[in-house]
Formats: sequence, C-alpha cells, structure tokens
Amino acid sequence: MKCLLVICDGMADRPLKALSGRTPLEAANTKNLDAIAKGGICGIVDTIAPGIKPGSDTAHLAILGYDPITSYTGRGPFEAAGVGLDVKPGEIALRCNFATVDDSGIVVDRRAGRISEGTNELATAINNITVPGVNFMFKESTGHRGALVLSGGEFSDKITDSDPHKEGVKVREVDSLEESVTAQTTAAGLNSFIKESQKVLESHPVNVKRIQEGRRPANILLLRGAGVAPSLVPFGEKYGLKGGCIATVALVRGVGRFCGLEVLDADPSTGIAELGSIALEAMDEFDFVLFNIKAADDATHDGNVQKKVKAIEKIDSVLAGFHEFAQENYLAILSDHTSSITLKNHTGDPVPVVIAGPEVRTDDVSTFSERSAARGGLCRIKGPDIMNILIDLMNRSEKFGA
Amino acid sequence: MKCLLVICDGMADRPLKALSGRTPLEAANTKNLDAIAKGGICGIVDTIAPGIKPGSDTAHLAILGYDPITSYTGRGPFEAAGVGLDVKPGEIALRCNFATVDDSGIVVDRRAGRISEGTNELATAINNITVPGVNFMFKESTGHRGALVLSGGEFSDKITDSDPHKEGVKVREVDSLEESVTAQTTAAGLNSFIKESQKVLESHPVNVKRIQEGRRPANILLLRGAGVAPSLVPFGEKYGLKGGCIATVALVRGVGRFCGLEVLDADPSTGIAELGSIALEAMDEFDFVLFNIKAADDATHDGNVQKKVKAIEKIDSVLAGFHEFAQENYLAILSDHTSSITLKNHTGDPVPVVIAGPEVRTDDVSTFSERSAARGGLCRIKGPDIMNILIDLMNRSEKFGA
Repeated sequence: MKCLLVICDGMADRPLKALSGRTPLEAANTKNLDAIAKGGICGIVDTIAPGIKPGSDTAHLAILGYDPITSYTGRGPFEAAGVGLDVKPGEIALRCNFATVDDSGIVVDRRAGRISEGTNELATAINNITVPGVNFMFKESTGHRGALVLSGGEFSDKITDSDPHKEGVKVREVDSLEESVTAQTTAAGLNSFIKESQKVLESHPVNVKRIQEGRRPANILLLRGAGVAPSLVPFGEKYGLKGGCIATVALVRGVGRFCGLEVLDADPSTGIAELGSIALEAMDEFDFVLFNIKAADDATHDGNVQKKVKAIEKIDSVLAGFHEFAQENYLAILSDHTSSITLKNHTGDPVPVVIAGPEVRTDDVSTFSERSAARGGLCRIKGPDIMNILIDLMNRSEKFGA
Repeated sequence: MKCLLVICDGMADRPLKALSGRTPLEAANTKNLDAIAKGGICGIVDTIAPGIKPGSDTAHLAILGYDPITSYTGRGPFEAAGVGLDVKPGEIALRCNFATVDDSGIVVDRRAGRISEGTNELATAINNITVPGVNFMFKESTGHRGALVLSGGEFSDKITDSDPHKEGVKVREVDSLEESVTAQTTAAGLNSFIKESQKVLESHPVNVKRIQEGRRPANILLLRGAGVAPSLVPFGEKYGLKGGCIATVALVRGVGRFCGLEVLDADPSTGIAELGSIALEAMDEFDFVLFNIKAADDATHDGNVQKKVKAIEKIDSVLAGFHEFAQENYLAILSDHTSSITLKNHTGDPVPVVIAGPEVRTDDVSTFSERSAARGGLCRIKGPDIMNILIDLMNRSEKFGA
C-alpha cells in the first residue's frame, strides 16, 4: 500500500466579499475534489497550532511529521537546500537578494530592477571570491533571489541581516547577536564577503550592460535569515517508506531534501498537468510522494481573485487522475496554510484536509472546502498528526504498549 | 455523585466489506447504546494521539488520566500485577511462556502444546527453586502464560528476552543491555533461574504424564518484556475518589492495581451479564468503577465478523441496566482502542465515546458508532482528557487560577 500526499499550497482562504462571502475554493468548480471528499474522510488541520500563521517551510515540516518548533532552524538553510546547495551539519546558510545600492550605500532597489537574466554569470563571479578562513558557496535562485552557504570552520547563526528590509536606507553591517567568537568570526567573514562581492559585481559585464540599457545593476547582495542545517531523522528511517518529493518551489524542495525525500526534477516552468503525471508515475518507484502544487498560492500573492479560482479549477482537473489511485492506496489532500487574497499573505486559519483510501471511515462531507471539511469525521487535527494517521491506515504503525 | 466508566475493549473497528462498508458497531443492533448516545454527549477519542496504535495497557493508563508516555514501564509488570503478583518499586517483572524445547535447546513449541492444565502444579514446583541473591515469584496465568517477579536486591530491566520469539531456533541467554552491575546481576540471576526451572520442569509428573500421552511437555520458561514497577500517584489520591476495577483480562487488572483501584474478583469464565450486575452493585461501595468488557476484542482477534457483531449486541443488552444509573450519576462508555477485524490487531483510529449524566451538554447524535460520534459535542479529545471531564462534571475539579 502506498501514499500520495498532495499539498495545494495556499489554496485555503477566508470568505471574500468579491465572491459574495464564499472562499475561492467554495466558488471554484471542483468536481474531482468534491468526489474525493465524498469518498473519503475530511477534517480541518492546524498545521502548526490554532491561529498560528505557518510558513510554507514550517508547515511542510509539520505535515511530514517533524515538530516544527524543534526542527526549524530558520529559512536560510531550507532555501539553500532547495536551490540545490548542500548544507551540512555545522554549516550556516543565508538567503540573498541581488539589489541595487547607490554610491553612498543607500539601497535603491531591493530586487535590482527585478533582475531575471545573467544571475548565473554573476554567481560564477561571486564564487571566485576568497575570504581567509571561510568557504563561501553562492547559488542563484529564481529572479533576484539566491542562497549562500558558509563552510570550512566553526560558524554561528546568531548574527544580524545585512538586508535593511526596506529601501532608502543604508545597507547594514552584519553584526554578532552574541558575545561568542564564532558569531564574531561569522559576522566578520560575511562583511568581507559582501565587500569583495560588491567589487566583483560592480565591474561585471552583466551589470555594465544593464546600466547601458538604463536598468538597475545588481551591484550588491543583501543577506538575511541565517540558520544552521537542521538535524532531522531521515524520512525513510522514521517511517520505513521510500519517499519522493515533487515541488517547483525551492523552499519546499529544501524541506524535502532535509527530510531525506528524493526530490525529483521539476521547475516553475513545468505545468500542473505534467507535474500531476510525474506524481502518479513516481508512485511506481516510491512508497510515499509529497506533491506540492504552488498555483493557488501564487494567485493569492498576486491578489487576483479570479486567478485563484481558476488556479483551483486547474488543480482540480489534474486530480481527476488521482481518484483511481485511492482505490487501493491512500491519498491525502490539504493546504499547507491558508493564504488570504485580501492580505496577500498567509493566515493562521486551519486548512481543509481529505484522506481517501480503502479503509477510511467515510463521513457525510460531499464537497471539499474550508467550511464543509470542518464537519468531517477527522474533526480538527494538527499537522504532525497527518503522517501518523496515514502510516496507521497503511497498517504500518507500531503498537505503543501491548 | 458517582461515575461508571465502561471500556468496551476493541469494540471500535474500521468499515468492513463483509458488512457493506459498515463497522461491526454500526451493523449491530444497539438500542441501549443508541439511547445512551441520544441522552448524552458524544465524541471521538485518541486514547494516545491521532494515528498512534495503543496497547490495552497504555490505553487504559491514558483513560485513567496517567500520561502513558511517562507512566508505562513495559508489559511485564502490568501482566504480573494482573495475575495477582505484587510488584513493588524497584522490583522487575517479566512475562513468561511455558514452552517446549528439544534436547539441543531448540524451541519446538512456544506454547507447550497450548498447555491448559497442571500449570499451577508446575508453578508450585518452580517457586521452590532458590538462586543466591535473588528472590523469584512465579505465577501461572491463562493457558501457557505466566509472570515472574524478581525481588530482594537491586535489579535492572535493561536486559534481553530469553524468548527467541519464534520456533525452530535456540533459546537465548538473557543478556544485559547496559554495562551496569545491576543489569549483569539481573541477567545472571535469570539465566540461573531458567536453568534450575528447566531441571524441575523436565522431571515433573505433569510433564511425564504429558509425554506419556503424546503431548508436548512444558519443559522450559521463555521470558520476555522485563520492566520495573511503574510509580503512579494512587487513583484515590489523584482524584479523591474510591475507585474499583472490574476486568477479566490480566493486563487490565494489572493497570487497575498499579493505579490504586481495588480490583474485584472476576475471571474470564464470568459472563458479561453477571459482570454488568457486579459493576452496578459495586457502585454502592465505590465512587468510581472502571468496567472493562473484553468480548468484542476477543471476537476481533478471532477475525470473526458475526461473532463481533453478536458480542457488541450482548454488551448492549447488558447496558440496558446502566441507563438509569446515569440519571443521577455519570456514565462514560468508550473503547480503549480500535481493533481491526481484517488485521486481527489494534489500529490507531480514534474510538467513539459517550458521556451521559445529569448536566452534560447533549448533542444531536442519536446512534452510537465510530462515525456518528465524530459529529458529537465533545469533538475530538485525547485519553487523558476523559477523567478530567468526568471529575469536572461530578463537580469535583479544582480551579486552576482564581
């Protein structure tokens, strides 16, 4: 028996005036999700805890059964792992933005004119920088984003960001947040790195060309979110299952890597339908697959109600093929967090979940939505309950006691 | 105001194909349970946590309000206490099987031809054995089962089983699992005990007769599940109630004893109806009675669907007399764990619960089943919540705060 866990990123929402008090999930035509709900058991999930607004990283950790409070070490390492950097125990990772500063060090644009081309060439140049006592590995991500890993010594994540988090102010020096030598060494190393990278970036042909074309140069890296690599029991060891991960979002791919899931090739240009096929095919090789679908969350961050409704309908159409899988196996579908289209941000509302498979105690819920699922047989559970419930349904749980 | 807690052992199940997708509880005619549900408040309970498969011992501990994670010390002491042996703080208890080995020490039959007679005589002979530095107390249980308690010194439960847990292989030597002197002393003492008991058993008239009759002799004891006596706040001290326990299963009787409940006489030959009368009569003497009914779980382990349905109907008929009790007192009915008749084993699905009594907030649930109870007013709670809720309904709870 196998298990497919579909995470519809940010699909859940609050009731919207623009939809006459319905949520996008309630307004969308979701015949497949409804059919799965009808044949399964529904409920609502606080991926972290009631009213706690989850990040995508902490929510995915929790849903995979890792206590988010103890296992989450900050966004840096998860982002870095997601873009393909190795972050080993003891190493520090940070998130980076290519940005534009003026001659006096004031941040003019935190996204360097939303740079989208040439960042790989800039990355190559940056990776040639040497700073005594620290090894740096930088990798560009989508758009202006990137990640940085420090290795080759003892470092601390108890440091401040160089990113001032707003424009019109000076770039900050990285500072230590504790008196330790390692924190001071880390801060000093990063400040040297920033200075050296600034030199390399300023004269780089990609930026020379951007300036000639009247665009903002990516002449500095802003660093934030330092964190150590988390130490997690590998998924296979924890559950005895060979697990795979399909996700186009770097952060979720990073969570998958740290949890010991095999992260399959997929990038943001891959369409949902194709991803759906990849997920179903992956079930031949894996016992468990985490399949993250980003479309509804993207629409939320754009603040576009109709786009979110359409994205949900698109997701629903892909799920048509998943119904049959749940005849002999288990299929769970939920959001990682609610995303409010009004706020263009996550919220702490619970998310709906459905579990379908051979031996679930079906309930009366016949549509899949935030409100209908709340009347389901699972009642209200937490993120880390999901995997325990699935493992037990797959008859793989161990008895506690006799 | 008094409280009767009825635990229908393993009554909850998953939907079964043989019952057209109903559970045995849904398929059974349970007019009394339904009437109690109609007049009470229902919900579902994870006795340990969602998806966690409970043992009967850990589940009963949790329902009685003892944290199963910290209070459970392994099956040995609970089994020993259940057959009537005293297991005091610092003492070690193990579970035993009468088994058959051949001349080369290979286990031929882990149950000694399912021996059922003469084990009390064998026990008497075994209890005459002396090993320097250790006092042994052995007691036979039902069939080939028994329990052993070590006292009179300092011992450790960090030891291996002598039981190889399968046939066709050699009996194991007990080994220490840690470097401590106490673990080594314990292992050595048990190995001497096994050797001495083997001598006594081989020449015992009960076995001589078995061999003459072509039956397998009970010529060795296989030991497993070593554990120290748990240290639990007595029920009376914890809740201020005089508590009794009615159970025919040794393991549950053991839990009752360790929790400080007075365990009343009852053995597996006592019929359910008689047990029901004993339970109601016991309410004259006790403030609280835990009444475990084993019948549905027995049917589950037999894998017999119709037997389970009939067992549930029998249980229901006994509960007819309990309805009136709940007019002035509180009555709670639940399972300790779900038992899947397909798997012939426990599962981690939640169990239905109903609480009836003068001041409960009744809900719309009018039948008692796994699915109907999930729509009840208690929603989804955990095992250790049960006693707190009952104590509060009895108006005996203490205020936390002011």
